[in-house]
Amino acid sequence: MPVFLRFDDPDFDAAFAALLGAKREEAVDVDEAVAAIIADVRARGDAAVIELTARFDRLELTPETLRVSETEIDAAIAQVPPAERDALELAAERIRAYHARQMPEDARWTDAAGAELGWRWSPVSAAGLYVPGGLASYPSSVLMNAIPAKVAGVPRLAMVVPSPDGVLNPLVLLAARLSGVDEVYRIGGAQAVAALAYGTDSIAPVDKITGPGNAFVAAAKRRVFGKVGIDMIAGPSEILVIADADNDPDWIALDLMSQAEHDESAQSILITTDADFGRAVMKAVDDRLQSLTRRAIAGASWRDNGAVIVVSDLDQAARLSDRIAPEHLELCVADPEALFAKITHAGAVFLGQWTPEAIGDYVGGPNHVLPTARSARFSSGLGTLDFLKRTTVARMTPEALRAIGPSAEVLAASESLEAHGLSVTARLKRLNS
Amino acid sequence: MPVFLRFDDPDFDAAFAALLGAKREEAVDVDEAVAAIIADVRARGDAAVIELTARFDRLELTPETLRVSETEIDAAIAQVPPAERDALELAAERIRAYHARQMPEDARWTDAAGAELGWRWSPVSAAGLYVPGGLASYPSSVLMNAIPAKVAGVPRLAMVVPSPDGVLNPLVLLAARLSGVDEVYRIGGAQAVAALAYGTDSIAPVDKITGPGNAFVAAAKRRVFGKVGIDMIAGPSEILVIADADNDPDWIALDLMSQAEHDESAQSILITTDADFGRAVMKAVDDRLQSLTRRAIAGASWRDNGAVIVVSDLDQAARLSDRIAPEHLELCVADPEALFAKITHAGAVFLGQWTPEAIGDYVGGPNHVLPTARSARFSSGLGTLDFLKRTTVARMTPEALRAIGPSAEVLAASESLEAHGLSVTARLKRLNS
Repeated sequence: MPVFLRFDDPDFDAAFAALLGAKREEAVDVDEAVAAIIADVRARGDAAVIELTARFDRLELTPETLRVSETEIDAAIAQVPPAERDALELAAERIRAYHARQMPEDARWTDAAGAELGWRWSPVSAAGLYVPGGLASYPSSVLMNAIPAKVAGVPRLAMVVPSPDGVLNPLVLLAARLSGVDEVYRIGGAQAVAALAYGTDSIAPVDKITGPGNAFVAAAKRRVFGKVGIDMIAGPSEILVIADADNDPDWIALDLMSQAEHDESAQSILITTDADFGRAVMKAVDDRLQSLTRRAIAGASWRDNGAVIVVSDLDQAARLSDRIAPEHLELCVADPEALFAKITHAGAVFLGQWTPEAIGDYVGGPNHVLPTARSARFSSGLGTLDFLKRTTVARMTPEALRAIGPSAEVLAASESLEAHGLSVTARLKRLNS
Repeated sequence: MPVFLRFDDPDFDAAFAALLGAKREEAVDVDEAVAAIIADVRARGDAAVIELTARFDRLELTPETLRVSETEIDAAIAQVPPAERDALELAAERIRAYHARQMPEDARWTDAAGAELGWRWSPVSAAGLYVPGGLASYPSSVLMNAIPAKVAGVPRLAMVVPSPDGVLNPLVLLAARLSGVDEVYRIGGAQAVAALAYGTDSIAPVDKITGPGNAFVAAAKRRVFGKVGIDMIAGPSEILVIADADNDPDWIALDLMSQAEHDESAQSILITTDADFGRAVMKAVDDRLQSLTRRAIAGASWRDNGAVIVVSDLDQAARLSDRIAPEHLELCVADPEALFAKITHAGAVFLGQWTPEAIGDYVGGPNHVLPTARSARFSSGLGTLDFLKRTTVARMTPEALRAIGPSAEVLAASESLEAHGLSVTARLKRLNS
């Protein structure tokens, strides 16, 4: 049974704190194994990648067959039924349009002292995209990672996807093609992350690696961070729905289950102003759990991590929501904009009852790679900025240096950095001579 | 002696690769000690922080004296000479003006399908700023970390600064005051990072921690990452100067030394189109190394990590510069804008001979916290965005859901996520009934 809490209960604070603090995922310690794999790939390159792929994926490769050829991709894509192709194309187009708006602008100006200042954005030269194999091989995730990179202008985008026993998902390859992925390699695990970070004879190194993966992939990304950039380390999925009584309990139940079905560690929470509605949603969830294909996973997630919280008003709901800092937040209330204005911490917000979270997973346009485990307090979902970096620029005229240089001399002296000060002094001397 | 290379030498590639790959800093493994300190602070809070401060900083504190009082800050600030106060105020004002321009805009639009989309930026609720004690206690770093946080709108900014034997730097306290820091604690090391991340009875937890520190601080930041956000882990400082023959060798020598004097591990490189000019700069460096106060540090850095590289033209210089991806890049050439257009990877660029890098350390306006160790390939200097996070937002009308919902149903089915699809299906059914 999921937790049923009332804000006004005397023990609410303790129960809510317990809900927030519960550890939903066992940390699997694979760090030593991953360190060995990375060292092996750095030392032996292709040979190590090929051996590890044979061992973990039961797939015999050569340096020539590491990469999936364009002919193979063409053949796989040809199998995709038109309805799925159309849906993927619509999604790609909408994701591209959304992320194009995220492109930041360069800036340049001259200030009152005569100093010319500004910054310039530029894409990373090469990005690597990790795509899981097997059950969690989602074509939508390919779009969500690859399209922002291409919108940012990344010239080279290399994708790795394990193909256990040689099996590749045609939809994943189609998503890669639609997104403009430049290279696809049929490898996975820590060895694929190491190959992207350090390069091998067959795989050129990249500067940034993004994309979800299992414990081995997460540990490898942590280890190569610094050598390359990485995106966040994703935890289990979460949804918080804030709903008043004027909703269909079955819709809300399905929204809660759409995260619960991802993973037994996923968390689905309903906050409502109406206790009866809360109970009706719990009943609707139980009904749906009779028949859902993934009822074993969704049921375990709901039982172990689910919660229904009854509040007196939406101000209370907003305050609790900010303490949860949810990955996904649905506002199914009469005036969702007014409630949104009271919320500070959330990865992605879905306004009103016609916006199920699943729209955001596929075709809404915003990214579905979002901060989990309360990290929406300090981080954002994936976006175009993740594939760009900013170079600041400054240009002094002699007059500008005369105006602000003396302050730099004073501060350099106060920090006992003599050469810093002298590099200004030498120039000012020329100006004053 | 620093390395002297010519692009046209047959063994240039190998020598340049060796220069790039050289490990300038020994990794000190303090991870186990740091893990124990963090666990202790999590378990015992203030008591652990107080004990560790007594042990490492020879300073006896109580929960009441952990925080530096406003009265103490007032008294310390009163000691600061007017020239230093004025210089710090000018720096603060210029840094504030630059970072105010970095504030991103919220967005909201309705697309052709009738879907309302957008995003909203909001600051983290609380940020923690680490300021080193002792030699590297730089007031300029307080400004560079604290001002972007306040420009972003962070309501609570807590600073920690160790005060070995009870000594605090008045200029650091003045910089904190000028930047709007809300709380100052006289603690440091891994224990201060743990207190900021997890909170104690006397120190409320923060959501993001920035600022430089020693190996203990860096290891602690890595460990608390995930629980809170962190900025980059800074490595030793670097400067690359690209200069033609039309420069004063002494100015360039001083610019190179202004990084070399930071640290024996710092790296200063000159790329020039004129071999004689390169030799003249080496001579000027040797001359300055006779008298510089920090000649021992600067001399060791130049000897072990310095380099002069002679190229045939500025295209070669730009290509080498992108391979170095320098933290600081000075373009002391006749047309610095034209050269800047050829450069992709650099933390901060200084255009023309009147813009010594030291200006950027203090009063230019751009941030001096910049990516080191080639990480300018994929990351940016500190800025206002580092204290903000973006919440994406979507709102479907019934018509928008009718237009794009069916594609979400198809993709959910292809990913075997039934509840995702049903959450859309249930709503479309109502629309079509």
